[in-house]
Amino acid sequence: MTETRKQDTDGTPGPVAARRPGGRTARTRARILDATLHVVARDGIAGLRYEEIAELAGVHRTSVYRNWPDRDELVNAALLQYSGTVELEDTGDLRHDLVDYLVALADLLSTTTGRAIQRVIQSARENPEVALPVDRIFERRLARLQQVVDAAVARGELPPVDGYFLAELLTGPVHLYVSRGLRPFTRTEAERITDVVLAGLRHTAG
Amino acid sequence: MTETRKQDTDGTPGPVAARRPGGRTARTRARILDATLHVVARDGIAGLRYEEIAELAGVHRTSVYRNWPDRDELVNAALLQYSGTVELEDTGDLRHDLVDYLVALADLLSTTTGRAIQRVIQSARENPEVALPVDRIFERRLARLQQVVDAAVARGELPPVDGYFLAELLTGPVHLYVSRGLRPFTRTEAERITDVVLAGLRHTAG
Repeated sequence: MTETRKQDTDGTPGPVAARRPGGRTARTRARILDATLHVVARDGIAGLRYEEIAELAGVHRTSVYRNWPDRDELVNAALLQYSGTVELEDTGDLRHDLVDYLVALADLLSTTTGRAIQRVIQSARENPEVALPVDRIFERRLARLQQVVDAAVARGELPPVDGYFLAELLTGPVHLYVSRGLRPFTRTEAERITDVVLAGLRHTAG
Repeated sequence: MTETRKQDTDGTPGPVAARRPGGRTARTRARILDATLHVVARDGIAGLRYEEIAELAGVHRTSVYRNWPDRDELVNAALLQYSGTVELEDTGDLRHDLVDYLVALADLLSTTTGRAIQRVIQSARENPEVALPVDRIFERRLARLQQVVDAAVARGELPPVDGYFLAELLTGPVHLYVSRGLRPFTRTEAERITDVVLAGLRHTAG
């Protein structure tokens, strides 16, 4: 295997690898996951071929097999890396962190890959092969949101709230804005949504 | 053309025709639109064939051509009929009307046809053939919502609000609930969403 590439942005699909730290092995893994995501976005999961992923990633096929002998694990890892590019921070200012999160989510969903992956995720209901990794990612995101929200509740910023409900209230509008594409989703939109939802929760508690 | 069917529920795809009033011509048209929706949901718009629609509707092909010589108009009419099964009422109680609307929307989105049509609608961004009918339907729904909301604003029920923003806040969570399918979408959920959004709008105005 001859890796002569100087940067990750040359032939790599997706925005993930360029930002990922770590050594050569980590970069190779990230590139494989990017390629997997790209192929899943383009063709779905059903006909996924390691050879195609290896070619797109610029690595040998054995390198893909060695890292992920199991195809489901490979898909799961790719979706996790994709999803991990948008993380909810906890700076102690819930409103600010939520707005940042919604803006980052909208940016991710607006990419060609993001749109395609959303379609794969939405087909999860009819496709048990996708349901498990999708559910895992969703549970992970949800646990993180609940953690951040619980901290804000403990600080007295808002009444106790179910993370699932809050997630749907906040991200549902973002998904619709982006998928309709009738208006650009700006930081102002993220702020308006967050402000209405937080104010609403404060005035309907109990 | 021999129409011997006694009811619309025998071979008709979708829930629309059975509820539609009117004479035999109206029933035939409704059945053609149901069949169109069914074919669009299954195969998308690109390869739509009048022959297949006629067969599915149990009518002659000429009957489809006579009613809709233009294919785009046929698709548009089918999507309009589909969308028209969920209408926002205006009883003078905004909260109640919105909750009813969200419950009906969730029911529609939960059907197999509803899910399939959602995918067609979501592909509208990449498929100009669908964009126009989808935008028309959305504009029509939005105008109706703005009308009902403006009446509530005039009654002093809430501060002036942009219909588009309100639509995304209310229906975004419904879309996510249904597409994720992790929890059933009940009337209680519709009430919680509506209450938080209305309370939030009342406390963030200006």
